[in-house]
Amino acid sequence: MNVFLEKLVTTQKKNNTLICVGLDSDIEKIPEHLKDFDDPVYEFNRAIIDSTKDMCCAYKPNLAFYEALGPRGLETLKKTILHLPMEIPIILDAKRGDIGNTAKKYAESIFDDLEGDAVTLSPYLGYDSIEPFLEYKEGFVFVLAVTSNKSAADFQYLDCNGKPLYMHVVETVQKWNKDKNIGLVVGASQPEQILEIRKVAPDLPFLIPGVGAQGGDLDKAVDYGTRNDGIIVISISRGILYASDGEDFAEKAAETLEQFNLRIRQME
Amino acid sequence: MNVFLEKLVTTQKKNNTLICVGLDSDIEKIPEHLKDFDDPVYEFNRAIIDSTKDMCCAYKPNLAFYEALGPRGLETLKKTILHLPMEIPIILDAKRGDIGNTAKKYAESIFDDLEGDAVTLSPYLGYDSIEPFLEYKEGFVFVLAVTSNKSAADFQYLDCNGKPLYMHVVETVQKWNKDKNIGLVVGASQPEQILEIRKVAPDLPFLIPGVGAQGGDLDKAVDYGTRNDGIIVISISRGILYASDGEDFAEKAAETLEQFNLRIRQME
Repeated sequence: MNVFLEKLVTTQKKNNTLICVGLDSDIEKIPEHLKDFDDPVYEFNRAIIDSTKDMCCAYKPNLAFYEALGPRGLETLKKTILHLPMEIPIILDAKRGDIGNTAKKYAESIFDDLEGDAVTLSPYLGYDSIEPFLEYKEGFVFVLAVTSNKSAADFQYLDCNGKPLYMHVVETVQKWNKDKNIGLVVGASQPEQILEIRKVAPDLPFLIPGVGAQGGDLDKAVDYGTRNDGIIVISISRGILYASDGEDFAEKAAETLEQFNLRIRQME
Repeated sequence: MNVFLEKLVTTQKKNNTLICVGLDSDIEKIPEHLKDFDDPVYEFNRAIIDSTKDMCCAYKPNLAFYEALGPRGLETLKKTILHLPMEIPIILDAKRGDIGNTAKKYAESIFDDLEGDAVTLSPYLGYDSIEPFLEYKEGFVFVLAVTSNKSAADFQYLDCNGKPLYMHVVETVQKWNKDKNIGLVVGASQPEQILEIRKVAPDLPFLIPGVGAQGGDLDKAVDYGTRNDGIIVISISRGILYASDGEDFAEKAAETLEQFNLRIRQME
């Protein structure tokens, strides 16, 4: 089994959870009292990680929130990654997609510089935009199939030769998966799509965003995604991170995470 | 006219050129003698800019080449941007595409932190992934329609309701263009597509990569793109940057750029 997947599944079993904490840590939304620290976002992340590390199966920082702060934001991200326990995998939500020689550089950024275990990528440029990432055999790539935002329908749902564009992405990604290091991003806002895609791609791991702040249906996402013993990771960001804006933010984040965990365990 | 476009067109006239220099400055490809400097990529960029600034109409750094070097790479990019003459516009080639609240952060990174004049974006997530960038009314967005890589055909050429996916992108982007601050990326590897897209989108500026190292046809790209007085920017990166790997690299880059300029002027 792929190194990232093994790390993920091991953590899922140990912590009895399918939930990944999205570290979309927004300087404008973190509690006021942290702003006195030299690196407020790092302090926020550190506290969130310390309080949730035994209850989640992965962390997923979205690079946008760090890049918005400039080079210093990237330093914050690197410090955050260093603070993570070695056994918990990190998914870098980057949604990159560029031509081959450029994709190679993004892959260096993700896997060499930031030392991520997995990455999210956009499919629009096709295979040669993905391939440089797949060469990192221990790493893992989640390709966007269906996203959880309202405008996903603009292009992803377009009927292409009798099926939606996202189903072409699903089928094509399956063909690319020679080294068993690709999965799909499948948003939870239209849960029936998770079922539909699970039927076509029984073996691909799914990263499922859109539960929590975005309103997706957790029960259906878990039910549909785990059919055929499918591997899934449910990613929740704002719904956990900003459970409280007081000094108890980390504690409340852990409590909220545990409520999601309990709800999933009750389904089993 | 949009502030970026005005800056672009003014520089195109002043320098009598349609060419943008792609600052895809790769630490592994820059001349050996620069590696003794504290910041070799900055030294490289500085020399390239100094030798080409009166012969091109824009600079287009691709963020991947800077991110691969970590936080320090972003510092290099910021120093490079500071070194650019104020009157020459900068297009940040980022190909970002993420859900609304995240796209807002990427927009802050591009327009506030890096102070870019324009950006490239990927269409896969639809309108709400583009909209936060459009709110910067002085900025400009080039949405990927057709890219210049071999695998562009994987999804972009798919037949969706009787026309290729990229034509849906072209038509949809036109509808988004309320503030006249959107254009398209149209690769030069299949020049007939430039003509086809110009007919459908007579008013949209095109950013045209794929000439030079990628082998696209310069003459056809210019001819087709400028029909109906269309605004185009021809982006060339490797073909100019690495014209020589010796101490004369900046001089040779300028000579090569001038050859491209002469060729375009001969067409007029």
